[in-house]
This record gives sequence, structure tokens and C-alpha cells, in this order.
Amino acid sequence: MSEEKNKQIGTFEIHAEEDKARTGVLHTAHGSFQTPAFMPVGTQGTVKGITPRQLTETKAEIILTNTYHLHLRPGDERIAKLGGIHRFMGWEGPILSDSGGYQVFSLAKLRDINPDGVVFQSHINGAKVSFTPESVIGIQENLGVDIMMVLDECLPHDASKEQTQGSWKLTKDWAERSLKARTNKSQLIFGIAQGAMFEDLRRQACSELSELPFDGLAIGGLSVGESINLMREMTEVCTEVLPREKVRYLMGVGTPFDLVESVALGIDMFDCVIPTRSARFGRLYLGKSWINIKNKRFRSDPNPIEENCDCYTCSNFSRAYISHLMHAKEMLGAQLASLHNLRFYQRLMEHIRASILQGNFTSFARDFREEWLAQRED
Amino acid sequence: MSEEKNKQIGTFEIHAEEDKARTGVLHTAHGSFQTPAFMPVGTQGTVKGITPRQLTETKAEIILTNTYHLHLRPGDERIAKLGGIHRFMGWEGPILSDSGGYQVFSLAKLRDINPDGVVFQSHINGAKVSFTPESVIGIQENLGVDIMMVLDECLPHDASKEQTQGSWKLTKDWAERSLKARTNKSQLIFGIAQGAMFEDLRRQACSELSELPFDGLAIGGLSVGESINLMREMTEVCTEVLPREKVRYLMGVGTPFDLVESVALGIDMFDCVIPTRSARFGRLYLGKSWINIKNKRFRSDPNPIEENCDCYTCSNFSRAYISHLMHAKEMLGAQLASLHNLRFYQRLMEHIRASILQGNFTSFARDFREEWLAQRED
Repeated sequence: MSEEKNKQIGTFEIHAEEDKARTGVLHTAHGSFQTPAFMPVGTQGTVKGITPRQLTETKAEIILTNTYHLHLRPGDERIAKLGGIHRFMGWEGPILSDSGGYQVFSLAKLRDINPDGVVFQSHINGAKVSFTPESVIGIQENLGVDIMMVLDECLPHDASKEQTQGSWKLTKDWAERSLKARTNKSQLIFGIAQGAMFEDLRRQACSELSELPFDGLAIGGLSVGESINLMREMTEVCTEVLPREKVRYLMGVGTPFDLVESVALGIDMFDCVIPTRSARFGRLYLGKSWINIKNKRFRSDPNPIEENCDCYTCSNFSRAYISHLMHAKEMLGAQLASLHNLRFYQRLMEHIRASILQGNFTSFARDFREEWLAQRED
Repeated sequence: MSEEKNKQIGTFEIHAEEDKARTGVLHTAHGSFQTPAFMPVGTQGTVKGITPRQLTETKAEIILTNTYHLHLRPGDERIAKLGGIHRFMGWEGPILSDSGGYQVFSLAKLRDINPDGVVFQSHINGAKVSFTPESVIGIQENLGVDIMMVLDECLPHDASKEQTQGSWKLTKDWAERSLKARTNKSQLIFGIAQGAMFEDLRRQACSELSELPFDGLAIGGLSVGESINLMREMTEVCTEVLPREKVRYLMGVGTPFDLVESVALGIDMFDCVIPTRSARFGRLYLGKSWINIKNKRFRSDPNPIEENCDCYTCSNFSRAYISHLMHAKEMLGAQLASLHNLRFYQRLMEHIRASILQGNFTSFARDFREEWLAQRED
């Protein structure tokens, strides 16, 4: 890597702002990506049913993978020996890895949390595994991802204030240890602010994290069962405190509506399984709404999923065909539906970025909100 | 369609012969395909997990779909209204449809066979459905396939001689009725010779079918549980009787070994689910053998499935990655494995055709046999 390029790694350039919304670019060791960015989820080292070539065609610029899953299978050391996660999964662009904190607390059994870390049973074979802030950074260095996330404790949305306070003390300590554990500066590292649904604790977490030398700051522990309004409130509390110059990542969010509204609150990065998971169940996004392609009315519909969509699916197949594949439980149905939804999400991000650059994002977001909510009331 | 092109439809040109093996080209309304040809199976209007673009990249020139399945779901009339099977599934090359005879006798329940046709219960919803030779041609005309197969009665491999004789009388009558039922000459029609495992009945069937004005002749009722040697014997009995100038299709066959050996007996066309079905279970073909990618020894293997294979999978991914996807039950594993096997089959056909043209097919087939059988003994 050239000295020139090396210097750029971690630089976040803001190109335009409109109210709290911003658009820009973040530079990583495997190239740059535009923000606001949506990261398709490749939990086990693959975005489900989608080849890297197809992923590139959706115009995704960065993807997410998962530390917990890849550590358990096929193993981060194995991936390191095979040349790293980029070569392993055939994706040459930026990759961010989730720390695994969320998975430990949602998938694994028999967790024992102590100041040092967390001990749990693998959901695959029941084997006892321990994660420490340091080991999780080590795993992500083995993977060779471009952006590493710190190990954190994820709380349920109804956690008590006392529990949340104690938990944040631990998570903050882990964050500091994670920073110290890093050995490779070309891999960026993001901190994660928790705080459950308490405004003051969210403010405190964001403020304390901001003082640490992270390359970016994430908001964790949202979209875990709370109401949309509460999620928005907490997001806003956070972005008010987070420093302007650092990139902001709202973890695990969300629907197209969530993306538009969260960009309006100042968020720069998102990841979510919705476009692929909902596609597998037949939910296809179009315009400012969605359809369920399994609905009877689409069985003879000769039109593409979405008029004017430039994805491979809409360029080649009718709603009737996708409907048939879904009813026949054919794998290709999930693939073509996922492709469309992933391209839909990227087109939305393109639109969001262009409208911030042009200074008309606020009106776009207002119209989007109105139309989205009107469709929901039908 | 131009008068010129129209005239060509159905023409089978033999370009070279070596002993009984031949290579040539068959012209259809959706273009020509080279023989010997292998047709990937798209039972429900999709080759499982493979987009038409990927299918084109495997160099498949003709694919197979299924009358029984498409009639039951989504319905051939629906497909006709949507512009035909080519537009429906996004494949612009030649398509052959199996008649559904085999499926009626293997999948459906409560069959009632009578001189007029067969009545059965749909395997999807139990609805009572009847097929006649005429209705099956009507369905295939609705689909708009390039090659239609006649309705036939498929017998088990251990059918008695008496049963087989009676059955052939019926199947032959159905074949004649099918020819009369055809209304669109740009859709070719193939007859199907049955005869179970009786040499004299196979000879009789092939001889009688040869007198009818079919565009091609198929051998049905093989690869249904009999030994490989018996299948070869029956194939040879048939190709000795079938006229040189008509294209010959061995239905539902087979392994790479079966293809090489059957070409040596004079077969021109094949279809089989093996490359896709076995891929889904981890069996990957290479050279003159195969591996099970789930085997432990491939978990850290950095090599492509097959050295020098030009498929998308081998060009981009390691055995270790495919192994991981299979163990993690990721859809992409089945897709990438199927892609490789389909390309393997087409490369084999390319090799077979080239060696017949060059006059060295016999030695190729001999070497293939030796190596294939040696691997099996390991």
C-alpha cells in the first residue's frame, strides 16, 4: 500500500450537510465508500443467496460480516491462513465486522459475564467459548476486516437504569481495552454507545466514547423491541452529542423508512438483514412501500417488481415469475427477490446522498414519511 | 420468422461420425444447439439456484423443463398469456419439455390408466387431473417449447414381458395420436421408445417409432433402477435400430461416465438432475471423478474445486469457502456448487464433440472409462 493511500485510511470527508443530515465518504484499506451507506449483511461470510458479482451490481460499496459466526465456523485462524476474509468470500471492497456482542447475547447459551469478558456455549455444537475485548479484536485482525467493532454488552430494551449504568461501566472499560489491543492501524476501529432507553445514559455514553480515539462511533442496543418513536428519540439524543467529524453508525437498522428518518437525525451508516430476510418471505420493496409477492393478485402480473428499477430481476422477470418461484419454493425466488431488495436499498441511499448534495433532502424525507405512513394505514 | 429460418427448423445435421458416435447440430425455432448435447434440468421453470445469465455462462445451449409440473403450477395457460415459457423464465435459447409421463408415474397418486389417457391426483393439492396424448401436446404448445415429448407410459425396470407388450401398444397408439394433435410445426415433436428390459420389445418399439414422422426419437424407461450394464445393453439395442438421420435422446441419463459411454453407442442428447442435485449435497465433479466437498480434508484447501476450470466458482473461490458454505447450510453453497457441476458437464460435452470431430473420441472414451472405474475402486 502506498504511503499516500495509507495516510487516507480512516479519513471521513463530509461533502455536504443539510440540517443534521450529511453526505460524504470514508476511506478504508480496501477502498472508499460513500455515506450515508447501507451495508448488506453477510453474517457467515456470504450475503444469503447473492454472489459477490451480483452484490457489486446492486452498487453496494461496503458489506458487513460477523465475528461471532466466523470465529465459530470456519474459524478466523483458518480464514487468516486462506488470505483473509476478502479473498475467502471473494469481495474486494470494504468489510466491517460486527463484534459478536449482539450474537453472544441473542444466540448463545449459558452466558457468564465478568469484568474480563464473556463465556458462552456455541449455538452450533455447545462448545464453551470465551470472548474478551482483546480476543475479539484479535479475531477481527485475523479476518482482516476494514472496520472492527468493539465487544459490548447488549441490553434488552426494558433494562433497568441500575443495570444499564453498571453495564455501561463494563462496556466502556471494554472499549478502552479494545483500543489498546489493536495492533494494525490500517484496520479501523469503532466504539459502540449503549444506554438502553435512558436519555441521560445515552448522552453520557456518547460523550465518554467521543473522547476516545475511535475512527467512528456506533449506536448499539436500538431496534431491539422498543417502539419506533423511542428508537428515533434515542437516536436523536445520541447524534446531538456525537462529534460532527466522526462517522456515525446505527447498528441493525432498518426499514427504508428507518433509513430516511435516521439520516435526517445525522446517521451515516446502516446494516440490516431486512432486504434479504424479507425477500426470502416474499416482501419486495418498491417506491415508498412494499408488496407481498405471494399475494394472489401477482400470479399473472406481467410487470417487473418495480417499474424503472435497473436490477437484474426487474430487467428480466415478471412478478408472475417471481410469484411462481416463491409458491414452488424454488431457491431462485429468494435469490431474485433478494437481488431486487438489495438494489432497492442502494437506490434509496443513492437518492438520499444526491438529495443532500442538492439541498432537497428535507423535503424528500417529508414526502417519504407521508407516503410510507399512508401506505401503512391502508 | 424468415422463410429461410423456418425451413431449417427440425433439421439435424451430422458433421462427423466416429464408429457409432456422432456430432452435429439440431435447428429449432429458438436457435440451434450442438450435439451431443447435455440439457440442464429446469423442472419448474428454473434450473435450481441458477439464473439464466449464469446458465448461459456454463455454455448450455438447450435446457429441459417439465410439462407435468408447469401444468399444475403455475399453469400452461397462464404461461401462454405471459408470452410463453422462454419469456417467463428468461431463457431465449432452445427448450425441450418432458411430457410428464414419467412424473405422472413417479409423483402422482391414484393413477387410472385407460386407452384415452391417464387420470391422477396432483402431488401439490390432490386435485384430480387427466392427461391425454392430445392434452399434453396442447400444454406444450401453450408453453411454446421448441421440442415437445409425447405422453408415454413409464414402466418399472422389472415389468413383465406381457405387461410391457400391452403397455407399448398403448404408448405407440398415444404417439400416433400426439403427432395428429400437433398444430404448430415450428415446435418439434419427439417420440419415445419404451420396452422395459426386453431386447426384442426395445427393437420393436424403436423400429415402429422410426416409421412415424417424428423430428427426433427418445429412449425412455432406462436409468430407472436397472444395472449400468443392462442400461448400456438396452441403449445399444435401440441405437442399432434407430435411423441414422434422426437425433437420438436418452432420457434422464446420467453421470459423466454414462454420457461418454452412451455417446459411444450413438446417443445425441441427454438430460439429468445429477449436476444440480448432487451439487446440493456437496458432490463436485472434476477430471474423471468427483469429490465430496463436505469432507474434512477440504476445510482449509485454498485451491479451486477443479484446477483449470473456467467457471465463475473456480475462478473466484476456494474449496475451503465452498466447504464452509455447505457446512453452514448457506444457499450460496448450492448455487456455486451447481454452477461448477453444470459447467463441468458442458466442458465434457465440448470435449466429446471436439474429439469426435478430430477422430479421437474412441481413445478418449477408453481412457475415461479406465480412469473413472479406477477411481470408483479406491
